[in-house]
Amino acid sequence: MSGDLALGPGAEFDAIRAMVARWGARATGIGDDAAILHVPRGDVIVASVDSFVEHRHFQRDWLTPREVGYRSAAAALSDLAAMAASPIALLIAINTPDSWLANLPEIADGIGEAAGAVGAHIAGGNLASASELSITTTVLGASFRPLRRNGAVDGDVVYVTGTLGGPAAALSRLRAGESPEDHWDRFAHPVPRIAEALWLADRGVMSAIDISDGLIGDVRHLAAASGVCVEIDTARVPRAADVSIELALESGEEYELVVTSPQPLDEREFRERFGIPLTMIGRVSSAGAGEVLLDGVRVVGAVSHDHFAR
Amino acid sequence: MSGDLALGPGAEFDAIRAMVARWGARATGIGDDAAILHVPRGDVIVASVDSFVEHRHFQRDWLTPREVGYRSAAAALSDLAAMAASPIALLIAINTPDSWLANLPEIADGIGEAAGAVGAHIAGGNLASASELSITTTVLGASFRPLRRNGAVDGDVVYVTGTLGGPAAALSRLRAGESPEDHWDRFAHPVPRIAEALWLADRGVMSAIDISDGLIGDVRHLAAASGVCVEIDTARVPRAADVSIELALESGEEYELVVTSPQPLDEREFRERFGIPLTMIGRVSSAGAGEVLLDGVRVVGAVSHDHFAR
Repeated sequence: MSGDLALGPGAEFDAIRAMVARWGARATGIGDDAAILHVPRGDVIVASVDSFVEHRHFQRDWLTPREVGYRSAAAALSDLAAMAASPIALLIAINTPDSWLANLPEIADGIGEAAGAVGAHIAGGNLASASELSITTTVLGASFRPLRRNGAVDGDVVYVTGTLGGPAAALSRLRAGESPEDHWDRFAHPVPRIAEALWLADRGVMSAIDISDGLIGDVRHLAAASGVCVEIDTARVPRAADVSIELALESGEEYELVVTSPQPLDEREFRERFGIPLTMIGRVSSAGAGEVLLDGVRVVGAVSHDHFAR
Repeated sequence: MSGDLALGPGAEFDAIRAMVARWGARATGIGDDAAILHVPRGDVIVASVDSFVEHRHFQRDWLTPREVGYRSAAAALSDLAAMAASPIALLIAINTPDSWLANLPEIADGIGEAAGAVGAHIAGGNLASASELSITTTVLGASFRPLRRNGAVDGDVVYVTGTLGGPAAALSRLRAGESPEDHWDRFAHPVPRIAEALWLADRGVMSAIDISDGLIGDVRHLAAASGVCVEIDTARVPRAADVSIELALESGEEYELVVTSPQPLDEREFRERFGIPLTMIGRVSSAGAGEVLLDGVRVVGAVSHDHFAR
């Protein structure tokens, strides 16, 4: 699409053309009022939207423009992983001040990297001026049988992918003026667990959620949706190096998955295939609908990452 | 979904719950990481995204919160009209400062009004804090054979729906400190021409575009995509009362459709059915690929509404 993009003249369209040129063959159908997407026969569409906002989710000196683009798209794709859906396409809405305009091609490179890693096309978008940068990514996927939050039942085993707390540790060090060191990559370069989710769905997992708002907060959403209690053994929760158990339990910005399964899963095979751990961290019980127990103690109050908490 | 929305506690989720409560049965599937949508067998998915940004597209004292919500969704839905797609669902990403939080239920009412008018559900969204209000709406529709911009051929007749220039006239009066009077409703309450588009597609129209960036600018996109020349008789362009021909030709914020048809269309039947005019304004020729002629004179330079024009 790049060289012959069928748009008229103008600075807005020049910026769009520059981004589409960076995407190359990964951009499809851009130039109509809307994108046309084909759905595998028998599948349902799985759709989600996520925003990444300057000054709220990141500061300009934290991330390169490419990382800003990558992270905005990768975080949105994580919602498709949580549903065990195969990505089809992204729509990218960018609101930007003039001061970011020259960085749009690098931002496009990061978006293209995230889309390419999961085989998704970039099928459309919108560009508008604004006083701060925000990137709103719509992800569209397909699934024959999506995983939902409401499938957990009494007796299920609870698993989490990866290790937790790295992104929060990186952020707290940055905000304290320190170097985030080893944890930085976990904040700047989260990996949506698409392939892992499809593997888990194939092995009979019955519910899933991504823990972008923190383990406890998101597990509580799952418990509420399923009308069950989730009991977590905190000593089992896999933590990044030098991360406290509190940070691992409560930190947002994670893009790992929590799943529930009627039968035990092969943790070794998972690690060999994906290079990250799959860890049994608890079980589902009927002790109280919508409840989360940490080592047998009921969680009360707001613990989830909450953009409007005081 | 309203009363029993399966989300955990927290101020962010309270705000989401308040909006979902206003949508009632129109909100479906909210509470999972992503929405699940069923596509009519044999249809393709048509998808688009559009943003409505405070201080750029509107000022707070111009519109009620309900109008802000209505207009953000209606403008996005216009892109489905341009493709002759039947709306299925909206995803709503709201970035908002605290000063707008109390208005979210009214904004939700306006979004629900726009969705309800075209039979679409509200299937998901995202809420984040930001320094200014922006509403990014993803629209998802289905079509057996979507209309595109690239279907115009030499000899086609060119039509436009409705009357032009009202929104621009309203905006220029507002910016001059005057009352927008009669034109205001055209700015605050645009109607996506979904039913009109389906009627036109049934009658053999082969290309379409919505003219949200202004008649000339968008017709030029169509001419470029189709590799044809579009010749417009400016005296035929239907204008709102007291609107100059220049304003009618160049004004953005229109949500009417331009279509090309191999044969003449029944303008009287259209007006009787939809209560707005359908007007033949020109023809397609081979005089120059991507060109627009106004009364035989070639249009040069940028005339389209351009968010980043200097």
